[in-house]
Amino acid sequence: MRSLLLYPSLFVLITCSLFARPVAPKEPFQDYIYQYSVIDALLAGVYDGELEIGTLKQHGDFGIGTFNRLDGELLLLDGKVYKLRYNGEVVEVPDAEKTPLACAKFFKPDRTIVMAGEGITYEDVVKRLEGELNGNSLYAVKIRAHFKTVKARSVHPAKKPYPPLAAYLADGGQYVFDFADTAGVCAGFLLPPYVARTNVPGMHLHYMSDDRTHGGHVFGFTADRVEIEIDEAEGLVIQRNTDSDMGGADLHRDRKKELHQVEMN
Amino acid sequence: MRSLLLYPSLFVLITCSLFARPVAPKEPFQDYIYQYSVIDALLAGVYDGELEIGTLKQHGDFGIGTFNRLDGELLLLDGKVYKLRYNGEVVEVPDAEKTPLACAKFFKPDRTIVMAGEGITYEDVVKRLEGELNGNSLYAVKIRAHFKTVKARSVHPAKKPYPPLAAYLADGGQYVFDFADTAGVCAGFLLPPYVARTNVPGMHLHYMSDDRTHGGHVFGFTADRVEIEIDEAEGLVIQRNTDSDMGGADLHRDRKKELHQVEMN
Repeated sequence: MRSLLLYPSLFVLITCSLFARPVAPKEPFQDYIYQYSVIDALLAGVYDGELEIGTLKQHGDFGIGTFNRLDGELLLLDGKVYKLRYNGEVVEVPDAEKTPLACAKFFKPDRTIVMAGEGITYEDVVKRLEGELNGNSLYAVKIRAHFKTVKARSVHPAKKPYPPLAAYLADGGQYVFDFADTAGVCAGFLLPPYVARTNVPGMHLHYMSDDRTHGGHVFGFTADRVEIEIDEAEGLVIQRNTDSDMGGADLHRDRKKELHQVEMN
Repeated sequence: MRSLLLYPSLFVLITCSLFARPVAPKEPFQDYIYQYSVIDALLAGVYDGELEIGTLKQHGDFGIGTFNRLDGELLLLDGKVYKLRYNGEVVEVPDAEKTPLACAKFFKPDRTIVMAGEGITYEDVVKRLEGELNGNSLYAVKIRAHFKTVKARSVHPAKKPYPPLAAYLADGGQYVFDFADTAGVCAGFLLPPYVARTNVPGMHLHYMSDDRTHGGHVFGFTADRVEIEIDEAEGLVIQRNTDSDMGGADLHRDRKKELHQVEMN
């Protein structure tokens, strides 16, 4: 009889202890854009970092960046990291590889905008988003289309001593592609003016074709229909680069002109 | 007999479920400096924010900032938030009050530097730290001394429509104090050039006397002996200000000169 009385209470105790565990508090900064290092360091010639791709993926399933030595453009899409190489090749990247600059977010779109019309351009999309969104907020942006054209670039790995980025790209480090009739995704961020020096104010996108055969940093595109998913972030997390080159880098200079040169052509 | 056999296994099950819960992973970004909003917003006249002081304290036990309407200088020390008012009064602040700009960190000093000598100045301390530390890293700094002098300021609450900060302070919003023979703590941050626009590059300290009777934003000090605790951060978390004034604020302008005017005199 004693055992019959005890069983139910034990059962309740077990059940409670298994299912009524205190709910873990919401992990902080989950709806933030995470970034490793700052754009000014890359502009100054700090092309190496200590962040592994495997760790980057813990901070988001979506993002952009580059790799150590500037070995190609980085695209993080649906939790996988791709390298868009200078020779046009696209490869998936092992977790142990490292990056000197990358941004990631867990992509949870808040809204979708569809633009349709003959020959919509990259500039049209930027204008539309800047008109509709809060210019002082931060957004992750994913654009799907069957593009008529995409102008993109990738970068050739550099050798030490690394020159400043604008000089390196102007001096043959950059490879420009003109893709035509290509279905794929542009992924990246639309950021406010106050990220000057840490990131890229305005729009910054990397492209990869759906068949994963080509892509790069986007200079421009045209399409007759684009679907734009937008995910507003609560803020920005900046992890500092602990590479030994970082301490001596001259980050006092205003590198706005260099940034424009590097991002836009 | 059946019940005797079952009890031990049930006991084991209960014990395991109570004590072998999975260990929570280390909370991310714990060794970061957290900040709410950006300095350029305050410079542009965004004097209100939606962050409650109670929430700020979840992100650190140490820090500085201000309050909505610019109602005094904020000091977060040993987990308590103090308001250093324009009239010289110091009060502890209830959790429901709000801030338009504040920085916090869980202060865990990595090293301590003692400087001793006749009439050491604020500038001497800055020079020493800039010489010894990594100019591209981020530090929380706590300075204890029996100061011969501290020059500090606080701010009078503003009324809407809020003018830009430099104009407001120059037009009577600022109250300057010359404290003498005062023991206390200067608390704040030493930050790299790339936080221009988001925070204050260089040193930024707020002072409070040990007896909690006076304090403010530090313009300068002298002392014969200072003890400096330094806590290097892994990075910076920026939470955006969701106040309605933020969307329309002009954050395109470079406000470096305004910042210098506001911080230094």
